[in-house]
This record gives sequence, C-alpha cells and structure tokens, in this order.
Amino acid sequence: MSTRFRHAAVVGKYQAQGIRPMLESIVQFLEREGLEVSLERDTALNTDWTDNDALTPAEMGQRCDIAVVVGGDGTMLGIARELAPHNLPLVGINQGRLGFITDVRASDWADALGPIIRGDYEEERRAMIEGGVWRDGECIFEGLALNDVVVGRGATSSMVELRVDVGAEFVANLRADGLIVASPTGSTAYALSAGGPILHPAIAGLVLVPIASHTLSNRPIVLPDSQEVQITIVNGKDSSASFDMHSLASLLHGDQVRMKRSATTVRFLHPRGWSYYATLRRKLRWYEGVV
Amino acid sequence: MSTRFRHAAVVGKYQAQGIRPMLESIVQFLEREGLEVSLERDTALNTDWTDNDALTPAEMGQRCDIAVVVGGDGTMLGIARELAPHNLPLVGINQGRLGFITDVRASDWADALGPIIRGDYEEERRAMIEGGVWRDGECIFEGLALNDVVVGRGATSSMVELRVDVGAEFVANLRADGLIVASPTGSTAYALSAGGPILHPAIAGLVLVPIASHTLSNRPIVLPDSQEVQITIVNGKDSSASFDMHSLASLLHGDQVRMKRSATTVRFLHPRGWSYYATLRRKLRWYEGVV
Amino acid sequence: MSTRFRHAAVVGKYQAQGIRPMLESIVQFLEREGLEVSLERDTALNTDWTDNDALTPAEMGQRCDIAVVVGGDGTMLGIARELAPHNLPLVGINQGRLGFITDVRASDWADALGPIIRGDYEEERRAMIEGGVWRDGECIFEGLALNDVVVGRGATSSMVELRVDVGAEFVANLRADGLIVASPTGSTAYALSAGGPILHPAIAGLVLVPIASHTLSNRPIVLPDSQEVQITIVNGKDSSASFDMHSLASLLHGDQVRMKRSATTVRFLHPRGWSYYATLRRKLRWYEGVV
Amino acid sequence: MSTRFRHAAVVGKYQAQGIRPMLESIVQFLEREGLEVSLERDTALNTDWTDNDALTPAEMGQRCDIAVVVGGDGTMLGIARELAPHNLPLVGINQGRLGFITDVRASDWADALGPIIRGDYEEERRAMIEGGVWRDGECIFEGLALNDVVVGRGATSSMVELRVDVGAEFVANLRADGLIVASPTGSTAYALSAGGPILHPAIAGLVLVPIASHTLSNRPIVLPDSQEVQITIVNGKDSSASFDMHSLASLLHGDQVRMKRSATTVRFLHPRGWSYYATLRRKLRWYEGVV
Repeated sequence: MSTRFRHAAVVGKYQAQGIRPMLESIVQFLEREGLEVSLERDTALNTDWTDNDALTPAEMGQRCDIAVVVGGDGTMLGIARELAPHNLPLVGINQGRLGFITDVRASDWADALGPIIRGDYEEERRAMIEGGVWRDGECIFEGLALNDVVVGRGATSSMVELRVDVGAEFVANLRADGLIVASPTGSTAYALSAGGPILHPAIAGLVLVPIASHTLSNRPIVLPDSQEVQITIVNGKDSSASFDMHSLASLLHGDQVRMKRSATTVRFLHPRGWSYYATLRRKLRWYEGVV
Repeated sequence: MSTRFRHAAVVGKYQAQGIRPMLESIVQFLEREGLEVSLERDTALNTDWTDNDALTPAEMGQRCDIAVVVGGDGTMLGIARELAPHNLPLVGINQGRLGFITDVRASDWADALGPIIRGDYEEERRAMIEGGVWRDGECIFEGLALNDVVVGRGATSSMVELRVDVGAEFVANLRADGLIVASPTGSTAYALSAGGPILHPAIAGLVLVPIASHTLSNRPIVLPDSQEVQITIVNGKDSSASFDMHSLASLLHGDQVRMKRSATTVRFLHPRGWSYYATLRRKLRWYEGVV
Repeated sequence: MSTRFRHAAVVGKYQAQGIRPMLESIVQFLEREGLEVSLERDTALNTDWTDNDALTPAEMGQRCDIAVVVGGDGTMLGIARELAPHNLPLVGINQGRLGFITDVRASDWADALGPIIRGDYEEERRAMIEGGVWRDGECIFEGLALNDVVVGRGATSSMVELRVDVGAEFVANLRADGLIVASPTGSTAYALSAGGPILHPAIAGLVLVPIASHTLSNRPIVLPDSQEVQITIVNGKDSSASFDMHSLASLLHGDQVRMKRSATTVRFLHPRGWSYYATLRRKLRWYEGVV
Repeated sequence: MSTRFRHAAVVGKYQAQGIRPMLESIVQFLEREGLEVSLERDTALNTDWTDNDALTPAEMGQRCDIAVVVGGDGTMLGIARELAPHNLPLVGINQGRLGFITDVRASDWADALGPIIRGDYEEERRAMIEGGVWRDGECIFEGLALNDVVVGRGATSSMVELRVDVGAEFVANLRADGLIVASPTGSTAYALSAGGPILHPAIAGLVLVPIASHTLSNRPIVLPDSQEVQITIVNGKDSSASFDMHSLASLLHGDQVRMKRSATTVRFLHPRGWSYYATLRRKLRWYEGVV
C-alpha cells in the first residue's frame, strides 16, 4: 500500500453548476479525511465557490498530490491533458453512464474514494500522443492528445487524400473521410466507431484507422509508438487536424501532421479490484447481445 | 555489416521435386561463394539428393549458421517452427507470388542472396506463441506457433462457446465459429481474413479475432503478450485447437487452451532495403483499388 | 379481420418433455376457444401425449388451418420447412429469449394467441430458398431452406475455393472458409455473424456473405432472387453444402450447388402491432450500447 | 434490336476544354453515322463550340433521343439527374479509369458507340431517390439523387444524433458521423466506403449505412424502396443533408429529411455483352488480392 494523499484538487465538468451539491459532499468528505482541498479554478468560478483555494492546473500540479475529477470522459480528457505534465494522479467520478476513464459511479463515490486517498488503489499509466502541424518546415500548431489525432476532410470536400509515413518509411496513400491515429486509450473512442480494434492500455502502440476509406482492401494497422508518424495532405481543400478535438482547420496541400508517443503519461487511480475488461464488457456490451 | 556465413542449410518445400533445378543452382551458388552446404533431410529425400549432407532440423541447428528456404509461406512456417529453438536465421525465396515471410523473388535470388551471405542484410526477429491444451490439470497437447492458435467449432456443430481469460482476469464469453489468437506475423494471415487488424512485427502483442461471432458488438482486441491467454471450452462438441494448423481435435467441455509469448523467436534475414510496408502494399493490394 | 381458425396443430421443440405443462395449457386454451386441436406426431411421442390426434406434417397440412409452435427459432425453422409446402400459417411462442421468428413471449401467450385465432393478426410471408447439389449433370442432393445455404470448407482444409455464377453470368472466384447465401430471414442469422447486412423480409433478394474471405476487398452483395445462383467447388477437399444446417459433406471438385427462390413461402402470424424493427432492436441490441 | 437513334446530345465534363479533340471526333463520328448532333450548353460554352446547336438539358430532353456523356462518374451523376425526368438514355465514355456508370473506355469509344446508336445495346434502368428537408411542416429543400442521401454531422460537432423511421414505423436512434441512404447505384459509392453491402441494380431497395456509428452493434440494413424513409435530427448542431452531394447545411433540431424511390429512373445504354459483375471485379478488384 502506498502512502495516503495530503492535498486534493477537485475538478468539475465545464457546466459544473448542476453538480455543486455533489462537489460539496466530496470536498467535505476529503476534508474530514484530513486532506487539504483546493478547487480547480474554472470549477470554482462556474460554481461561485469561495470556501477553498482556486488553483490553475499549473498550481494544482505544484501543490496537490491527487485530483478528483467529477464528470464524463470528456471532462477527464480535458483536465488530464492539462495535468499530465505535472504527473498528478487522477480519479474519475461519473454521474451519468460510466465512462472508460471515469470509472467510479457517482452513487459509490464515498466507498471508492476512501480507500484510494488512504493509498489503497490500482495505478495505471496511459500513454499520450504529442505532435503538431508543419508547414514549409515550420511548426504552426502543437498538440497533445490522450485519445487520438484525427486528420479529416473539409466540410465541403468529398474526401481527403493523405500520405502516411512512419519514421523514414513510406506506408501508404489513402483517400478517405479521414484518418484516426489513436492511443490505446483512444482505441475505445472514435477509432472504435470507425472500425478499429481495441488496444489494451499496456500495448506500446498506436492504431491507424481510416474513416470511410475509398479503398476496399484497407485495414486498421497497429504501429509501434516508438517512431514518428507523419501524415501529409496530398489533396483535399479545407482539411483539418485535431488533437483530442482541438483542431487546426484549413490545412494546405503539403502540410504535415506529425505525432509520436509523448514522454508524458497520464496516471489514473482505480479502486482496488478494478478491471479493464469489466469496463469493456459494461461499456461496449462487448460480446453481449446475440444473433 | 555482420560477418559472412559459413555453412548454409538449403530447405525446399514439401513437394520439392519440381524445384530441384532451382535448388541445384542455389547450392552451386552457395558453394562457389565458399560456404559449406547441407540439405534438409526431407528435401534431400524428396529430390533423391546425395551430393550434400542431409541434416535433420536439430543437426542443422548445431552445424549450420543460415538456412535458405525455397517455397511459400507454408514451407517457411513449418521449418521456422522447427529451427526456431536453434536460433538459426532464415532467408525465404518464393517461386510463386511473394509471401509475407518469403520475400525474395525466385527470379532475383542470386542478386538478393549474394549480399546476405556476405553479411549485408536486415535482420528481424519475430515473436512466437507457445502453449498447449490442458484437461483435468494435465497438459495433453503442446504446440508452438509463428502465426496463430485457433480454437474452432467441430464440423457438425453450429458454433463453439468459449470463455477467455488473460492472466487472472476474466475477459469475455463468446459464441462463434472460433477464435483466433494471432502473433504480429499471424495478423496478416487467417486473422486478417476474419476481420482483424494488422500488427506491425515490433508490437509486443497478440490479437484476438473471433470468427463469425454470434454477437454484433464484438471487436478484435490487442493484448500485451506478457500474460497468458486461456481459452476454455464452455460448450460445443468436437471443437479443436490448432497451433499453426497442427491440431488437436475432439476437445471436451472444460478443456483449456493456454498460450503465451514464447522465449524463442524466429530470425528472418531480408535484403538490405526491405520494407515491411512495401510487402503489405504488394501482398494485400493494401490501400490500392478504389471506390 | 380475417375469419377465425378451426383446427390448430400444436408443435413442441424436439425435447418437448420439459414444456409439457405449457403445451397442455395451450391445448386447453385452444379447445376452450372452440378449436379442434391435434398434436404434431413427434411432439406427441416425446411427451407421451394420447389425448389428441397425432399428425404428421403432411396430415397437419391437410387437416389443420394454423400451427402453434412452442420453442426457439431452431424448432420453428425445422417445422416451417416441413409445413411450408402446405401453406399452413405459423405462430411462434418462445420460452427463452425471444427469437426472430418466434416472437410471442411464453409469459404472454394467452394474450397474444387469443386475438390471433379469432382472426386478428398481422400476416407475413417469408421467402424460401430451394436447390441442390449437382455432380456430373445429376442432382445428388435436394434442399429447402428458410435461412440460408452454406458452402463450407472441410474440417481438415484451410479453405475452399469457389466460383460463383448468377444466371448465365460469372460473378467471382473466392477463397474462404465458406460462403453463405441467405434469404432475408437468414440475414439476421449466420450471415449476420459473418458480417452481412440485414435484409428486410420484403426485399426480393438473397445476400452472399463470404466467411473469413482470403481477399480483403470482398464485400457482401445482395442479388435479386429471380435468378439461380450457382456455386462451383473449384478446390478444397471434403467441403460441404448445408440447407438450413441439413448438410451434404464430401463434395468433390466440380460439384455445383444451385439455389433459387422457392415458389413456396412460409406464413407467419404475428400479434397485431408486431414490428420487425422492434424485434431487431431487442434481439440485436441494435443501435444500443455506446462508444 | 431496337431502332437506331436520330439525334444525339454530346455532354462533356465540367472542365471540358481538355477533351475538346475527343468531343470533336465523337461529334464527327455521330454525324457520319447520320445523326443530328447537339451539344449540351455548358459543354459548348466551356469549349467555345459553335458548330452545333447548344441545348439546355430540358431542350435535350425534348429534341434528342440519346445522350453521349464523356467524363467520369461525377459528370454522369450530374447530367443523369438533370436528364432523368426526360427519359433520355445515356451512354458514358470514360477517359480515366473506368467508372461504374461510365463504362465505355475512351480508347474503345468508336467500337462501342457504333452498334449502340444503330440500336444494338443493353438497356438498364436505375432507380433514383427523391426527397427533401422538412422544417415545421414545410419543405425547405428538395432533392433528387441517383447515388445517395447523406445526413452528416457539422464540421465542429463530434457526432449527430438521428432518429430513423420507415413509413409509420420507428426503426432506431443512432449517434454517428452520419447516415447514408443509398440506392443500388450508390451502394458502390460512398456507402461502400462506409462499410455497406453491394446491391445489384435490380434490387428494389435502399441501404442504410451509418458512418462511424457510436454503437458497436449497428449493421447496414436494406429496406424496401416502396416506403418513405424519414431521418430526424435529434441532436447535433450544424448538421447537413446532401442529395448526391447537393447539400443543405445548418439543419436544426427537429428537421426531417424524407426520401423515397422516385418515379423517375435513369436509362443507361451499355455495349452488348456488358456485365455488371465484370465492372465490380474490375473497379473494386473485388475478390482479387489475397491474404
């Protein structure tokens, strides 16, 4: 068992007003457990919260040793990206249907949170993707993604034509609605919708999944995350690159989207007994339902 | 550049009679290059070859330092499995259409083989799967596979019901024609036919691909190869387990097929400039053909 | 509203012993409603039933005007094929999870059956496939299928190579585990497992779905059911042809499996308000479950 | 054999300047064969053509009895939609790689066109989809499509949520990048990229294919084209409806896209011996390429 935590940051989803009562219960619980508690700045602003310190992600990184995130996978995705460089571990509490990465049910939060803050948890590190967009040899956009990087066609185009290289090797040209490069965490998000496989979080790989590819013989491919993936816009006006939904639109022909595994990882804390496969079965109704 | 080779074993496909002229040219070429040359025993038998030593795979492992394999992917698969424990590197020469693992074209063999035996090549190690079938606590079948382990329904059953565990964790139950567990090498073989993704050979993973699953929400999943995969027969008479097509049929309810990454790897030598992705594009017409 | 029925045949699943109490309730209910009631002969034999006439399917066809089938889709499939030539309408009552074609829940049978026998129902006709296997110009096997015709590889072969023709036109060669030709009814059975689309029962088509095709560019194709489909065994020892699971094994090279829409249809009676799409949603958890 | 044609309209692709020499040869050929020849107005404008009458599609419909279209499938799609109401048969000549619906190779046009204009051809009628967008009970957009109707998410949304009804029956809710409703002709276009099956042109059906559906259990479904399909925007800002790429963007919640089989069909003339399946094999490399 690891040592217990001392200073928690509490983070609510963007529109946190509606979950203020729950946030209050969590803050009180953590304080009763003897932790110092701060609120993430935007969460405090959105809920008019003044009883605790309001911290920026950077300040949270410096002063806190755990972050309790209340919301869905989208909320977690956003804050995880900001906190990742600070190595702060995260616990996700989900009000609605359980997420892949917010795996404590709202109704169970006290039972789950107690042991975790006392140091009894399962820790898991998730790989991130870092990269950017290069134009004429210059980086014009930088991004960090926990889920995926998506290069997509413009709204008025019928497709985008892309060239894919890995390291110094040419992989393929493809014409499609777009191409998703997903981490194992992202493999159960958009990439799965587009027909990709599930990658266990321990796989040191990225999966390339085309969206509505104009060729019939394409297949998703899992690449080692030790090399840089380069995606070049060959054709297709107004295409875009998105890092976890943060986009640069209006890419030009010749623009190159580059990405590789980041040195930064995200640390998730799960209740003891947590199972990745149980989450899969529950979320995806995976291997349930019958013909 | 590595040092040159000294003693080559030449291996022909099962029905090697028809390729005897080509085998003779290769043997003469290797001898002219100063190598000692032996023939794999069955190849010698099938071609009535008496001019060179005829060696068993074990003898090849002890005495030779390179094996030149003439035939298709099936031939390579068979001999690679036998030679893998001896750490002998393999070069594949393919008469018909190029294979994934026999990537020197028959018409180019002299140009390709010369530099390789002089030590100028790209070496690649491929992971293997080892395992077996357990009944009532006893191992009743052992297997080693370069491509895949397949658990399949019997010919007269409409499906097999399987339970999958990884390490100590339950993964899923599934009802299907069968389940393929493929290495990266096997990911471009049967697993691809059944809808699986391509795994780059550097991925330390196994991919589970159901065949005609009776559930609609299943998806292939890539698992780390550091843990044992256990597949238990829950239901389905006369189901079978195959390691690279070597089968044990008539499995009983409760039988368990277990597999994990083998400590043994296969060493392939490729001509300088060889590209995994070029092989994919050529073999699969991958991302070629157009809608 | 149509006229009410007069003489019902009651059919139980193969191992009907366990559902005898339910069969008794149904028979009593039907008799109280004023119908003459007979039992299907095997159902009577399996349950030692002597109180009612025991009829063969042919006799049922001559004397009854409705068949009440208790069991799963498999039971219905078997009896529907036997009764189809006699044009007898069928109602399916399902004890376990609802089927696609046995869509009255066991717990609701009285509520559902009452209106139906009084003539208040929705009738639906389902197309059947008829065909056979030809060798050297002679028909060596005849079959009738409500779901599908499957041509599959032998247990010891790695694949079967097939040639497909439609009418006088060559369609394609394919190498695969097998090929399914499914009716709309069969499109939600094995063909769906193998990756095929769903065909609404009103579609006058057959869908060809390869199983684990060795080509990446294959796709299921929906053909008009007005022409004969011919599947020729090009290669692959011990392959087989199955009409709704009734098989002829040990096909030889050159054998031809031919099939076309049968003139015979199956008549299903559903409770008023029955919805094909609701069945889909419920059975397949179709469009339920979320990424 | 039908009677020969008398008055041909020649249509070039949008940027017809580059194919003017070929258009000239075709016009001369047709005139030598004794036909009166007119040019489609835009084709004449784009090529500064003054030697022949320049006609609008409506005038072509009134005065001509055949249209010869030079260009790709996109060109054909555009003019076919305009000419369909006039019942004018079309022949497609393709300069680049062959299309699905422009199936005479540029190099063979004289050999192919000669017999056709003398009345020796195979005629094929293709179904079209007509429909529109309804808002608050009013039709705000009308469309006609030979290929497909696509309802898609806005560029800044991660998905669109749709409700599908057929006739008076609820089919399903779905969350996806979009939903394609394709005719048999469109089944080999975008719908195929998104994972749909191929529908033979004789199938009286429409296929619904979701794009990157957020559920794992979805499957394409083929519906009879005798009923109206209604797609309602449940959620998703800035989503759009496209009829063969002609779009209405900025749909609002509650907007309904309705479509059904049009009474209008497109008439294609093919050279004698033309085969739909041969086109499939050639275009899609269907069942070619090998694992």
